[in-house]
Amino acid sequence: MKENRYDNEEFFRKYSEMNRSVLGLKGAGEWKALEKILPDFSGKTVLDLGCGYGWHCRYAAEHGASRVLGIDISRRMLETAKEKNSAGQIEYCQAAMEDLSFPDGSFDIVFSSLAFHYVKDFEPLAASISRWLTPGGSFVFSVEHPVFTAYGSQDWYYDENGNILHFPVDRYYYEGERQAIFLGERVTKYHRTLTTYLSALLDNGFELRRVVEPQPPEEMMDIPGMQDEMRRPMMLLVGAVKR
Amino acid sequence: MKENRYDNEEFFRKYSEMNRSVLGLKGAGEWKALEKILPDFSGKTVLDLGCGYGWHCRYAAEHGASRVLGIDISRRMLETAKEKNSAGQIEYCQAAMEDLSFPDGSFDIVFSSLAFHYVKDFEPLAASISRWLTPGGSFVFSVEHPVFTAYGSQDWYYDENGNILHFPVDRYYYEGERQAIFLGERVTKYHRTLTTYLSALLDNGFELRRVVEPQPPEEMMDIPGMQDEMRRPMMLLVGAVKR
Repeated sequence: MKENRYDNEEFFRKYSEMNRSVLGLKGAGEWKALEKILPDFSGKTVLDLGCGYGWHCRYAAEHGASRVLGIDISRRMLETAKEKNSAGQIEYCQAAMEDLSFPDGSFDIVFSSLAFHYVKDFEPLAASISRWLTPGGSFVFSVEHPVFTAYGSQDWYYDENGNILHFPVDRYYYEGERQAIFLGERVTKYHRTLTTYLSALLDNGFELRRVVEPQPPEEMMDIPGMQDEMRRPMMLLVGAVKR
Repeated sequence: MKENRYDNEEFFRKYSEMNRSVLGLKGAGEWKALEKILPDFSGKTVLDLGCGYGWHCRYAAEHGASRVLGIDISRRMLETAKEKNSAGQIEYCQAAMEDLSFPDGSFDIVFSSLAFHYVKDFEPLAASISRWLTPGGSFVFSVEHPVFTAYGSQDWYYDENGNILHFPVDRYYYEGERQAIFLGERVTKYHRTLTTYLSALLDNGFELRRVVEPQPPEEMMDIPGMQDEMRRPMMLLVGAVKR
């Protein structure tokens, strides 16, 4: 996540108009599924990697977390986080998550929402997170689904009349950089396989508790494009516990 | 797996000519990855669901299993299994796996290779397998990958000159029956999501040990079509342990 589109003025403006930015957690299609796999925050220390506007930091604080550290590389995101989602237990800090360093066992819970697909190497990060967690600590995250990141463009495949035919998968086992268009801007993301995500956890002392591909919720089905989200998996949610 | 194409004469003939039928385990692209996640068979009782020609039963017997029960719905497959892969510890039995019933804790290892995508409901089967296993017992299986089964036809998407463009994904969250063409015959398979496969295990007392999407092995890359298998995940291997 060393590249940082979110401090680009135009990109940030468009991002700030997205449902998930305006409405917070309730505006995110995956939130209900994600909430179900969250651990109990009461009295826990929490690290949020790629915290963005800080909605999840606030949720953790409101659910009893004793200390929440939100990390993001974007100055603009953190400014908004401080504006919208401040609380006594929450601290925000600007950093690239690859550069972080904490003493072993610093956190009870490590959380990340839709940020790891901006990170080039997941395995070393998973190893670090395992060290940063207390034994029995929770690691819960969402990422873009490998099916969604494989091809690169992250767009549907259309017929000549502009109707969606299907979603294209290609280059699945060729991990690495992909150039996607997000909010009209070219954004660099990193594709990796499901195997790579899960093996990084299993190889670094985690036990998998939940692996969930969230479906669009019933009550959002009238949002334009949401019905089509039944046709491909776009996100992957993982809940794990450090042994 | 109640439908049984393998007793159709023409289908069986074509199946018998496939590399995996002629060469056994060495002819199966996923075998090396699958072998890596197999448990130790020494002195263990093994159930093989959808055993086909019995190659895996023989492998288990040759690796010290004390008793191996191979189940398949196809009479023809089992005839060949008895011919090619017999041993004192191996018993073959014709049955649909949905109809099986064993006392609790009957097996140390339950194994299945590329058979569960013929089964309509995976969850009740996972529950049964959990009961049939001894505590600490292993459940290892391969299935067609949800990416491969989602669309239905299981074929690439081509341009007007017959060149592969990509692999199509569609109807991902609509689980159920799919009609695919396999060896020139219409075959009924069942698509389910990754979430459904893994949740059935996590909800039935299993701990996930490995989740692997096997890549085509280097030494098979000169087999026609194998290079293209780098472009999509075709199989999913899962290794789990009963708590």
